[in-house]
Amino acid sequence: MVYIDDTIAAIATAPGEAGIGIVRISGEKAINIIDEIFQSKQGKKLSQYPVRRMTYGYIFNPDKKEKIDEVLVHYTKAPYTYTKEDIVEINCHGGFIPVKKILELVLKKGARAADPGEFTKRAFLNGRIDLAQAEAVMDLISAKTDKGFDVALDQLEGFLSKKVSATRKKLLDMLAHIEVSIDFSEEDIDEVTLEYLLHKSEEVEKEIENLLKTAEAGKILREGLNTVIVGKPNVGKSSLLNALLREARAIVTEVPGTTRDVIEEHLNIRGIPIKIIDTAGIRETEDIVEKIGVEKSKEFFNKADLVIFMLDISTPLTREDLQILELTKDKKTLILINKTDLPQKADLDKVKEIAVNKKMIKISLVEEKGLEAVEDALEDLVYTGEVKAKDRLLVTNVRHKNSLERALASIQDGVSAIKKKMPLDFVEVDVKNTWEALGEITGDTVAEDIIDHIFKNFCIGK
Amino acid sequence: MVYIDDTIAAIATAPGEAGIGIVRISGEKAINIIDEIFQSKQGKKLSQYPVRRMTYGYIFNPDKKEKIDEVLVHYTKAPYTYTKEDIVEINCHGGFIPVKKILELVLKKGARAADPGEFTKRAFLNGRIDLAQAEAVMDLISAKTDKGFDVALDQLEGFLSKKVSATRKKLLDMLAHIEVSIDFSEEDIDEVTLEYLLHKSEEVEKEIENLLKTAEAGKILREGLNTVIVGKPNVGKSSLLNALLREARAIVTEVPGTTRDVIEEHLNIRGIPIKIIDTAGIRETEDIVEKIGVEKSKEFFNKADLVIFMLDISTPLTREDLQILELTKDKKTLILINKTDLPQKADLDKVKEIAVNKKMIKISLVEEKGLEAVEDALEDLVYTGEVKAKDRLLVTNVRHKNSLERALASIQDGVSAIKKKMPLDFVEVDVKNTWEALGEITGDTVAEDIIDHIFKNFCIGK
Repeated sequence: MVYIDDTIAAIATAPGEAGIGIVRISGEKAINIIDEIFQSKQGKKLSQYPVRRMTYGYIFNPDKKEKIDEVLVHYTKAPYTYTKEDIVEINCHGGFIPVKKILELVLKKGARAADPGEFTKRAFLNGRIDLAQAEAVMDLISAKTDKGFDVALDQLEGFLSKKVSATRKKLLDMLAHIEVSIDFSEEDIDEVTLEYLLHKSEEVEKEIENLLKTAEAGKILREGLNTVIVGKPNVGKSSLLNALLREARAIVTEVPGTTRDVIEEHLNIRGIPIKIIDTAGIRETEDIVEKIGVEKSKEFFNKADLVIFMLDISTPLTREDLQILELTKDKKTLILINKTDLPQKADLDKVKEIAVNKKMIKISLVEEKGLEAVEDALEDLVYTGEVKAKDRLLVTNVRHKNSLERALASIQDGVSAIKKKMPLDFVEVDVKNTWEALGEITGDTVAEDIIDHIFKNFCIGK
Repeated sequence: MVYIDDTIAAIATAPGEAGIGIVRISGEKAINIIDEIFQSKQGKKLSQYPVRRMTYGYIFNPDKKEKIDEVLVHYTKAPYTYTKEDIVEINCHGGFIPVKKILELVLKKGARAADPGEFTKRAFLNGRIDLAQAEAVMDLISAKTDKGFDVALDQLEGFLSKKVSATRKKLLDMLAHIEVSIDFSEEDIDEVTLEYLLHKSEEVEKEIENLLKTAEAGKILREGLNTVIVGKPNVGKSSLLNALLREARAIVTEVPGTTRDVIEEHLNIRGIPIKIIDTAGIRETEDIVEKIGVEKSKEFFNKADLVIFMLDISTPLTREDLQILELTKDKKTLILINKTDLPQKADLDKVKEIAVNKKMIKISLVEEKGLEAVEDALEDLVYTGEVKAKDRLLVTNVRHKNSLERALASIQDGVSAIKKKMPLDFVEVDVKNTWEALGEITGDTVAEDIIDHIFKNFCIGK
């Protein structure tokens, strides 16, 4: 266990008016601090009660002899806690002031304000969880849909870590084998060794590839599918948005503190978090294309994972329609042909000519037709190939994906080196690199600055 | 104790990404429910552990055999809880999804979603706290400054309730005395009785008056001082706002969920919560008066408790300046004369002529002069007469103020009836009315619909 000599404290609940707020303290001084500022209804200190017992009483400022709040507190001794250090949790009234007053007092009594994610960082440094599990903690908290939450929970439980560790075990076996072969044979490498190494390398390659296949869907589940709806005025953009909003099983509340300038709608379509970027007024003005122009559309397209392009089947295509269609060429695009309740005047063959291989769906928002097909298409766009909607093991994290990509490149180098019967030292380097790249995921082989960077993105109090 | 036969549940922490979220259950079925959906690390049910013990384990969906989250849970048996019912609290991961998933499961297992303030309402109905104390709970949670919080905490501890009860005790004694006098004397009322009643009535009158004196400051501490800053372009409105923001010891974070249309700045000046209503852009445009016009200013003035009117000493007064000055006549107004670093061109005598008895302060925001005087003036505006900044017993609630006003009117009727030597039945009615009006504060004599209305304004989960 790493020896960390200071005691940290933070507000562990979200800011806002609510029933309960929590201030959490972790470290050697946690129990001393609470004993100085807490008195139970029976006039006792917290340490006079058993561990883990929720004890009712008051927080008071001993210097001013002033009551601060009614609270429930409990403590647990190291190492049986989240951080593997002594932990005290103070449950006080919700709202902005009680947690603030109590945290201020705790800091005055010797704790230091925790950095973002510092409790979880200690859990990692003290060996309670590995790095992928630590990252899963933050994914749980920031999950936007049930599905995203489930995948993060599995990662916290170690599903990904176990897979990665199993692959790394294979690589370690290979390294041992190579070491022995290098030590004992001056002459050419025997065929048995080569065959063994090739077989193992290809196994590893396949395992890494399988994990990488899930990365795109995983990223979307974690971060949401950034979607832009475009189309000329009156094509039905706002109707589509409203229809999707009605279908969304749970609209995830917007995170407080996000910027006010860009308005986003958060939808949850079959467990997929979808973030519709409201380009300054899909809802009000209905003239986004006109207003922002074709040039500006490009900018929005760059930010988007998916463009939903709407056409009106009842009016002829305009030059602008075709221009935008041209712009979506390199983008994941869903083309919706709206107003199928009206007579057709648009030349859809022309659309198909430009939008090769794009999914095109006919809908009528007025008649409420085609919405299910739209949802099917959204789901298909996310879960492609062998990745299924019911899969729980998904690589959700871009950092993991990058490590996997580096691991894959290294093992592919290894495979080709073996095939070319290169000297075993060469193969050894490739296998070693693969092993190290995978170790970054669990944090076994990761640099300190990367760890710092990871926890910086956590919320405070976790 | 009132028998309440259903079990309620709610999310007790504020929504948002955070370390911890809490779902709270109260009622007869609370422990059955948690036993169905929780398993400790040792594979046991929660009820197999002692009360109040924070127990680590998992929430799972027994129907789908699916893990929902890692949690810490504890339970306490009636009547030793906040609601005087069995209570279970589930501490899960923060964020939107974990609390939502757990609450959904708890509701599926037989709890009902709690109404706003329903836990506290049960605490009141079950006799744990009186109505003024229940209201103090919400005031604690929504307190905007330390000072507002302290006053609410005293109210929760029963300071106000004790005062009111003591006064009501006096009124009860008077009623008893009157009853006896009416029963035993057919003839005129004796002088001793009259003197006694007059003395007591005047005591009660004084006590109610003293409480009422604190009501204005109390209301501001609780609700904040709605302030509008007006003045012509470039007079320094945004500089003033920025200077005050710098001085504010703690800026209370905006409550999530408030409307986006009106932007407000929350300041804390010497414990006074001040809400600066940003009339569509004090900060950006600097031309509020020009833009919204004199007519529109009226509207903002109506919403404001205080108007800060800024003048530029270095330019002559304009017709608009005088028009606005005229509008502030019936308003609490602070007139700030800015730019005293420049030569005087404004005719301040004219200002004094219109703004009779208004506080006028010369400042120079460029030279950072006069800001302390502005804060002094703000403090003086709140704590007027005998009410001091250090007073903790303040009537903060408009409902209490109204009851006190009715009580005062009744006891004053009583005093005048006694002085006129009216029949004792008349006096009795006045004393009874005073007693009842005061009883509304503690909830002893309050109608059910008023109770419902009070708790409707609570947050959910408290």
